[in-house]
Amino acid sequence: MVRSNWDEIAAEEALPGIIRQVVHGERQSMIRYLYSPGAVFPVHAHPAEQVTVVVRGTITFTIDNVEAVFGPGGVAVIAANVPHGATVVGDEIVETLNAMSPRRDLPPTVHEQL
Amino acid sequence: MVRSNWDEIAAEEALPGIIRQVVHGERQSMIRYLYSPGAVFPVHAHPAEQVTVVVRGTITFTIDNVEAVFGPGGVAVIAANVPHGATVVGDEIVETLNAMSPRRDLPPTVHEQL
Repeated sequence: MVRSNWDEIAAEEALPGIIRQVVHGERQSMIRYLYSPGAVFPVHAHPAEQVTVVVRGTITFTIDNVEAVFGPGGVAVIAANVPHGATVVGDEIVETLNAMSPRRDLPPTVHEQL
Repeated sequence: MVRSNWDEIAAEEALPGIIRQVVHGERQSMIRYLYSPGAVFPVHAHPAEQVTVVVRGTITFTIDNVEAVFGPGGVAVIAANVPHGATVVGDEIVETLNAMSPRRDLPPTVHEQL
């Protein structure tokens, strides 16, 4: 049972300028990303379904080859195995929360697969 | 495939002073709650596992009979069927994002079970 705050949860640089933190349940993982201005998360895909909410900042998501700009409050459901990527817009830090199900036991790092 | 913004997603009053919005995937639901000052979500339980993140405001969560105050960035993993409830602290609106897995097809309203 996790009772915590993102400030107390280990952070890793998943990709250049992209900080990742993760908490796990049994059935799902909650991933918080902090993107620096200019950061790019290349298009990739994974078997977990993903629900992404933009908490702050502005970011372009490319989902299934469709590009759209998301600001605060933006929400997207990305089905399993659908290719998706992200590019920060402007000069604000972007924070997103990504709920993944099933849980991702070994979140990859910059040294592993995207 | 949802591509939207909370501003465009239907809202309902789940309980007095507690506004709920929901987006669904196949495996999970993302629920956004906006709590007014003074709002109380009575202790309840459900078979879905829940990961809650506090986006803004301050709220007391009672989880499995343990009470703790959560501010912005607070995160809790609430296992399936564990009793939990919430009470707003102070006079700010509280926003939480609750990832539920499996998906909750029929989010209950104030007229139904909690």
